[in-house]
Amino acid sequence: MNAPLSPIAFDVDSRRPVPPEMVAALKARFGDRCSTARAVCEQHGRDESPIDVPPPEVVVYCESTEEVAAVVQLAHQHAVPVIPYGVGSSLEGHLLAVQGGVSIDLSRMNKLLRVNPEDLTVTVQAGVTRMQLNREIKDTGLFFPIDPGADATLGGMCATRASGTNAVRYGTMRENVLGLTVVTASGEVIHTGTRARKSSAGYDLTRLFVGSEGTLGVMTEVTLRLYPLPEAVSAAICFFPSIDAAVQTTIAIIQMGVPIARCELLDPNAVRAVNRHDKLTLREAPMLLMEFHGSEAGVAEQAATVQDIAREYGGEDFEWARTPEERTRLWTARHHAYLAALQMRPGCRAVTSDTCVPISRLAESINASVEEAEGAGLPYFIVGHVGDGNFHLAYLIDPHLPEERETAERLNLQMVERAIQLGGTCSGEHGVGLHKMGFLVTEAGEGAVEMMRTLKRALDPRNIMNPGKIFTL
Amino acid sequence: MNAPLSPIAFDVDSRRPVPPEMVAALKARFGDRCSTARAVCEQHGRDESPIDVPPPEVVVYCESTEEVAAVVQLAHQHAVPVIPYGVGSSLEGHLLAVQGGVSIDLSRMNKLLRVNPEDLTVTVQAGVTRMQLNREIKDTGLFFPIDPGADATLGGMCATRASGTNAVRYGTMRENVLGLTVVTASGEVIHTGTRARKSSAGYDLTRLFVGSEGTLGVMTEVTLRLYPLPEAVSAAICFFPSIDAAVQTTIAIIQMGVPIARCELLDPNAVRAVNRHDKLTLREAPMLLMEFHGSEAGVAEQAATVQDIAREYGGEDFEWARTPEERTRLWTARHHAYLAALQMRPGCRAVTSDTCVPISRLAESINASVEEAEGAGLPYFIVGHVGDGNFHLAYLIDPHLPEERETAERLNLQMVERAIQLGGTCSGEHGVGLHKMGFLVTEAGEGAVEMMRTLKRALDPRNIMNPGKIFTL
Repeated sequence: MNAPLSPIAFDVDSRRPVPPEMVAALKARFGDRCSTARAVCEQHGRDESPIDVPPPEVVVYCESTEEVAAVVQLAHQHAVPVIPYGVGSSLEGHLLAVQGGVSIDLSRMNKLLRVNPEDLTVTVQAGVTRMQLNREIKDTGLFFPIDPGADATLGGMCATRASGTNAVRYGTMRENVLGLTVVTASGEVIHTGTRARKSSAGYDLTRLFVGSEGTLGVMTEVTLRLYPLPEAVSAAICFFPSIDAAVQTTIAIIQMGVPIARCELLDPNAVRAVNRHDKLTLREAPMLLMEFHGSEAGVAEQAATVQDIAREYGGEDFEWARTPEERTRLWTARHHAYLAALQMRPGCRAVTSDTCVPISRLAESINASVEEAEGAGLPYFIVGHVGDGNFHLAYLIDPHLPEERETAERLNLQMVERAIQLGGTCSGEHGVGLHKMGFLVTEAGEGAVEMMRTLKRALDPRNIMNPGKIFTL
Repeated sequence: MNAPLSPIAFDVDSRRPVPPEMVAALKARFGDRCSTARAVCEQHGRDESPIDVPPPEVVVYCESTEEVAAVVQLAHQHAVPVIPYGVGSSLEGHLLAVQGGVSIDLSRMNKLLRVNPEDLTVTVQAGVTRMQLNREIKDTGLFFPIDPGADATLGGMCATRASGTNAVRYGTMRENVLGLTVVTASGEVIHTGTRARKSSAGYDLTRLFVGSEGTLGVMTEVTLRLYPLPEAVSAAICFFPSIDAAVQTTIAIIQMGVPIARCELLDPNAVRAVNRHDKLTLREAPMLLMEFHGSEAGVAEQAATVQDIAREYGGEDFEWARTPEERTRLWTARHHAYLAALQMRPGCRAVTSDTCVPISRLAESINASVEEAEGAGLPYFIVGHVGDGNFHLAYLIDPHLPEERETAERLNLQMVERAIQLGGTCSGEHGVGLHKMGFLVTEAGEGAVEMMRTLKRALDPRNIMNPGKIFTL
């Protein structure tokens, strides 16, 4: 075992071995889709977080809800942890086997089960990724807007209540999941929600599972809302004399109710990284990358309004991405920002913040964070879904220098405390995982966290569903 | 006690008396804000449902979260039911004291606590009504869109996950509640959510309480999203040769992604009722009452698109409500439809359906219901938030004629079964209450309902929070 890089508390004594008879039962049922190979387990014991934990003991590749239920029934019987795995793109240690156990790989559950373009809905298996979904429904004239940076699975996106660049207009996974198929902690299969747009029928189990990070059950099928592709789309870049000016512009856009579809901030460090990674030649200045959706006239009107606002804050004339290819190139670069920045410091890892605040407090929140980052002398970059009040400041730390991690974590904590004080949250879209358990208590209060624990104990009395995440029991 | 009008099962033997020492403690603390007067209790033991149940034994008028907590602590200690009460406008028996107990009247908790126009949020006490809220924030240029027919309290609207005429554009209470203050079943006070637009920090307690119908805790404060008043608003009426034509038009509007703000169906019976009640002279034909929000140009464009669609289905030229006063008159009439219809048959009560289906199945759902209603020979009317796939068919029954109730309930059941088969829900916005407990099992399945029971038992082990609603324990 490597020494943990992280100050995160996890207790190797709490690891629960997978008994040989359970491994045998899994091998009997799944054949070579059940693996205990070191490389396979290690691959499933990592995510994008800078935390190192010993891997799970077993990986099972499931191909149906029934197979997931079979694994969970065995785990329930033996009180062994199970951790659902999509593509491993979570950022906060969600996938790490802090108590050992079995990784359930859902990536082969990658079928679209029911496309209902006439209802603007689709039902997918949890292992379908967001890009695959949009590729496969392209001919319907519809799209699914939620786009975290990575090409995550829809199941993973449900688990972390993901959002991305379109959330300012289309909402997050919270607003866009209509229903779920869930394998409960005892290995039963239940269905939540319906294909209707709204419902007042009983407790909102769908939204209890969305954001539960695998701790209450395994989501195996997801019914989603889709949206008609807009008649017109235009993307614009606007450079600003300062980050503050870009943020003030964003605040005004939201306060005026402009239905902007995307409104992303990149600081000069982020621009430099994507320039290098995606061979672009953007000016390395604070910029907003925006997109407008609507009718031809509506898009023109929105853009004119936003250009006027931007000018008031010293923003320059918009530069337009006029063709779909240019737009794709820009947004692809934006989605690569995280990976691009990692490459700016070879061998580094990122300590990423994810605060989200009420829109009027965003400038205060970002400006203070920039000042701290500049003072710290660590490489960093900022990207932000600023229309939502959400931004990520990531420190690029050398994993071999504990003092760098310490500085980054200390400044991260300051950012979170400030966000909470401003009426905001420690996590806009990445989730709590291992990394933010302390922040959650600060934000929600011990009473609310204790209620979460009560729910967890009720639905998962043997504590087998991704144990040790979100809160300590 | 009156003989119950309803086929709803409730067991008078399950009534739990309020012990004299608890009544004494409440009187000592609340003085004349604690009442056991028969008239007061009876008023708090009714809602708009056609169900009669003996009233609660005690009513307490609370003025703060702390006072609510004090009542709940006593109730917890004595294992006595508590039922939160706003203005009594729920439709499914939510307020009925099927197990006796204490009604907590929240109507005096009617203050706006924090208006944050710069963040488009407001925090209100649970007893603030939707109209009061909009009156008090008028000067901010913002509004809160959710509008059930009655002038309900925001607490009550949270409890039933209410929506109304604007939900097609602005969502329901599910999408518009950012956070809550809740008194738990043990009388503790917790806070859920933040003022940020989105969050991935832990379980979504906010949405667990929204729609929980008072069965998990008492919501005492609510933080809501607000929206800028649109630059331009226009309302139009369109008459159609048939209900089917109006519904087909609606389906096409939604499928094309027109961002219509309101899209309401009234059948000729509903039009007749509002004509008489509100002294209007609308033609008594199937009609859509629509509203468009946006810029001047955007509204004109949306309206032109919808007029084109309507014509394809035989819809006539739009009639415009050009002034704010005309618009208010029309929408007020729409909101009066329920009361107006009740007055069409003096002494009647309404048995109301609330199904919601995927949009493409709406015509099928409404047409079959109309056919059944015509065949039944009972007076009825239809109003519908058709843009959501949601409509209400209400039978006006003579409460002294059990056969009328039986017919209405039988046809209601048929509507619900059809909606569920079409991928929809038994309740779009009214909630389950007493009336739809059976429907919920049909819709969600025994496994999901059992999970709801597990949550209820975990959060309310003494079963004191509005017991006997949503499901039987």
